[in-house]
Amino acid sequence: MELTKGEAYVLGLDYGSDSCRAVLIDASDGSEAGVAVMNYPRWTKGLYCNPQINQFRQHPQDYIDVLEGTVKAAVSQAAKSPGFSAEKIKGIAIDTTGSTPCAIDAEGTPLALKPAFAENPGAMFVLWKDHTAVEEAGKINHELQSWGGINFAKFEGGIYSAEWFWSKILRVFKEDKNIAEAAASFIEHCDWMTSLLTGNKSLAGIRRGRCAMGHKAMWHREFADSPDKSGGYPSADFLAGLDPRLVKIRESLGTETYTSDTCAGGLSAEWAAKLGIPAGIPVAVGAYDAHMGAVGGGVKTGALVRVMGTSTCDVIVGPKSAGPEKAVRGICGQVDGSVVPGMIGYEAGQSAFGDVYAWFKQVLMWPIEVLLPRIEGADDALKEKIAAEVSKKIIPELEKAGARLDPSDSGIIALDWLNGRRTPDADQLLKGAVAGLTLGSDAVRIYRALAEATAFGARAIVERFREEGVAIEEIIGIGGVARKSPFVMQILADVLNMPINVNANDQSVALGAAMFAAVAAGLYQDIPSAQKAIGSPIEKTYAPDPGRAAVYEKLYQRYRALGVFIGQGTV
Amino acid sequence: MELTKGEAYVLGLDYGSDSCRAVLIDASDGSEAGVAVMNYPRWTKGLYCNPQINQFRQHPQDYIDVLEGTVKAAVSQAAKSPGFSAEKIKGIAIDTTGSTPCAIDAEGTPLALKPAFAENPGAMFVLWKDHTAVEEAGKINHELQSWGGINFAKFEGGIYSAEWFWSKILRVFKEDKNIAEAAASFIEHCDWMTSLLTGNKSLAGIRRGRCAMGHKAMWHREFADSPDKSGGYPSADFLAGLDPRLVKIRESLGTETYTSDTCAGGLSAEWAAKLGIPAGIPVAVGAYDAHMGAVGGGVKTGALVRVMGTSTCDVIVGPKSAGPEKAVRGICGQVDGSVVPGMIGYEAGQSAFGDVYAWFKQVLMWPIEVLLPRIEGADDALKEKIAAEVSKKIIPELEKAGARLDPSDSGIIALDWLNGRRTPDADQLLKGAVAGLTLGSDAVRIYRALAEATAFGARAIVERFREEGVAIEEIIGIGGVARKSPFVMQILADVLNMPINVNANDQSVALGAAMFAAVAAGLYQDIPSAQKAIGSPIEKTYAPDPGRAAVYEKLYQRYRALGVFIGQGTV
Repeated sequence: MELTKGEAYVLGLDYGSDSCRAVLIDASDGSEAGVAVMNYPRWTKGLYCNPQINQFRQHPQDYIDVLEGTVKAAVSQAAKSPGFSAEKIKGIAIDTTGSTPCAIDAEGTPLALKPAFAENPGAMFVLWKDHTAVEEAGKINHELQSWGGINFAKFEGGIYSAEWFWSKILRVFKEDKNIAEAAASFIEHCDWMTSLLTGNKSLAGIRRGRCAMGHKAMWHREFADSPDKSGGYPSADFLAGLDPRLVKIRESLGTETYTSDTCAGGLSAEWAAKLGIPAGIPVAVGAYDAHMGAVGGGVKTGALVRVMGTSTCDVIVGPKSAGPEKAVRGICGQVDGSVVPGMIGYEAGQSAFGDVYAWFKQVLMWPIEVLLPRIEGADDALKEKIAAEVSKKIIPELEKAGARLDPSDSGIIALDWLNGRRTPDADQLLKGAVAGLTLGSDAVRIYRALAEATAFGARAIVERFREEGVAIEEIIGIGGVARKSPFVMQILADVLNMPINVNANDQSVALGAAMFAAVAAGLYQDIPSAQKAIGSPIEKTYAPDPGRAAVYEKLYQRYRALGVFIGQGTV
Repeated sequence: MELTKGEAYVLGLDYGSDSCRAVLIDASDGSEAGVAVMNYPRWTKGLYCNPQINQFRQHPQDYIDVLEGTVKAAVSQAAKSPGFSAEKIKGIAIDTTGSTPCAIDAEGTPLALKPAFAENPGAMFVLWKDHTAVEEAGKINHELQSWGGINFAKFEGGIYSAEWFWSKILRVFKEDKNIAEAAASFIEHCDWMTSLLTGNKSLAGIRRGRCAMGHKAMWHREFADSPDKSGGYPSADFLAGLDPRLVKIRESLGTETYTSDTCAGGLSAEWAAKLGIPAGIPVAVGAYDAHMGAVGGGVKTGALVRVMGTSTCDVIVGPKSAGPEKAVRGICGQVDGSVVPGMIGYEAGQSAFGDVYAWFKQVLMWPIEVLLPRIEGADDALKEKIAAEVSKKIIPELEKAGARLDPSDSGIIALDWLNGRRTPDADQLLKGAVAGLTLGSDAVRIYRALAEATAFGARAIVERFREEGVAIEEIIGIGGVARKSPFVMQILADVLNMPINVNANDQSVALGAAMFAAVAAGLYQDIPSAQKAIGSPIEKTYAPDPGRAAVYEKLYQRYRALGVFIGQGTV
């Protein structure tokens, strides 16, 4: 089957941390027919969140509110293209952040959509970066250690995170007993979107995504076939040891999970009418943004795709082995089919990447934000203009000045764990550090050292993958930092001593979703075929400089030594 | 002998890093009759310095230029007091920074005062904080280790510093062979001032101060009586092993050193005429500012005086022991009579104190200094006003906000070695660090952690003194930070878990010099009598808070652990 241009379109919906993006793609060549972005209205106002305790909740109504707006806007934009009609839209796929679960009732409705829980943050989606469940994660890890049976976290790097499904359920249970009673199950954001769009009204009808359940809920086929018949998820005994109420949740999940090249169902008539697109078209099983993004970015064997934003998500695939699956130590997880169906999808990442630069900017902004408003003799409008201009220029100018320095200039070594460490070897309690400071360590030198630290963090991940036998021959960067900061990308290339390719498409994630929509709709046979046909080209390659790479080789040893010390927890 | 008010006056001259202060004191009660301050004109312009390589040199003409101006201004101010006349000035004493040596000719004239060397930084005074002699210090320390004889640094903490006399001489020799040839000797700034004022014209006529030579040139009476007859200074054999040219310098120093309660000579007619004060009045032997300052601040057995400015100098005295003098490990030095004649004077200190706060201010000022000038739509005068106001407010406002935090709030632990570590256990190559950083670590929290780090550094010194048997029951703070920052002083009291007294006199150093002038002039029998009569009272006491002290007890262990790690030099 060879598609011609203008013959068929697919819709990719990308639910990010702050906004939803709808992209309509010509399924023949990947060209963009329409795109629209909308911010979540309640989230934008800061509702239901408490950054002091790292509580980040999103109201399900936020997701509904932007759905109609973005899809309709993308469709009406596409309508300007000659030959387009909404009837030619052949499939939808949705990616979301994760692990971002929410308590639901027996019909699959998030509790916050019910009047009794409408304003209760515990009844909302617990966003990926919510860290309120640190204690609960500790409990799970303790149980994993002391539990005599299967290590259910073995395919998730061996350490269960506070950011993940079961930790968050325990946390919500602790926050509100009424929610614990009212919750028939919990659902990941990506799975709820497909349940909603397909008009599903039962727990059994939810098609749980392989990506979410495999990476964050400890589902693995090996467990299903195990002697204690856990059914893929951790066994009832194990969960009961944590909290007896989890047994019910486990039962509600069923035993099967689905890859995103398959259908969750057809688009319901209700939503087809609301969105102005055909009823009954395939809605692909949902997955996480980084995983669909990796597909959109060109992930394949040997090519690690790094989604580089506030944090990073590093995704790669590898062939399945003949015998039992070998677990890679200390990464976030590995799941058969979570990225490219038929292959093992591996996920790793850094808890803070762009956030490290944003943090330093915030430190430097203190005099502007706190002192400038109090200075007399300048009007408020001018002060606001100055603050806005400085805020806008501070990182670009630090990078411009930092790029003129050599790697060995500052003598500063920093540790990028300001938001804990995601991989290798997750430890959310770790903290950042800056060493090698002298009275001559200025803002530019510190900033450069922080950028180098984030690159060293990336190198630690690449080295771990290689040690564990996962080949990495190429790095592909997608996401905000990859496209906006040549400074960071060059340092990354020098530190990794590998070329870094940056994808030309600035919405690789939505593009990846569109690829899944195309395969689920039967327009392509599989993901590699879709990637080949509608993937976007490499826009820029950052080549490593041999001289700088040699210096970084030594500096990386200092980074490691600092990390080993900080990791001991004595400071 | 009981003095009455207005009967006799003494002149204290305090040569600091940037300026000279002349203070005229009523010798009966310590009340101030006149005071004047002048900056060194060449130094103010930044001449002969290169901060990038830590080269700081001062032209001897700078010291001459401010001498006449400050003394005359102080005298003419005093002339307004009823009963004062210049004829009533009975003595002069001078303190300077140190170790601040300069190459001199056979008549005791600094080489830079001779036309051939007038613009040659190697022919000028090498200021205490000049760090160009790091390599030379390494050479000396290596020789001290491998040399089979006496450890000549044993009374200087066992480690010889790049900031000190012999290191700097070696450095100057390396910088310029012509200076090495022309130098008949080297002289400390304090000793040159007395040589100048007494009209001395020979090397033999220089009265070398016990304080400078004992603390920084490895002079000790024990060495004079030793089997290899070193004459008080390191032996000719030892010095020849470093550089044969040092042997001549050693010979030029003689064998005796003098405490500052004795006279270097009478004021020469030439300088009496220039300054408008009586010829022939006693000029006390010179000493370092911190040591005379400690006397002015009220140093005594058990009372450590901390001169707290950009760095600190911590001075205490103790009784002489009956047997051989016990060397205290890892302090800057201990010298019989360097502070209070008849007692052992101990010196320690932190390489960076106020400089740590100034460094962080400088980091935060980057956007203001670099970005603000480029913003359009505001005139330059306004931008300069904003920059000046922010610069003025930044530390006071950080301290105001920081004072509202509890010690355990930030989780940040910093190391104050941004300018190396002076004591305990000198190591100029050490660097600062900040650990425990999270995305929530704001400017105020970092600043507070830096202030805590400087207090932990102080505690390390106090603990070392105590471990070595030098009692410390009281802390007296003098200098800029002591008087200006209640925030830092309270943290210091809490970290040391001791009350900190701050002296009421804001020119304790010049007052200390005046006390030596009074004793050298025979107005008081000894320093303790002079302290009692003309010392200034305690203005404020910072009492430790038991709760915060308990928290700091734990945080100090984290500081120590970080220090041990950084001290290993792997990062």
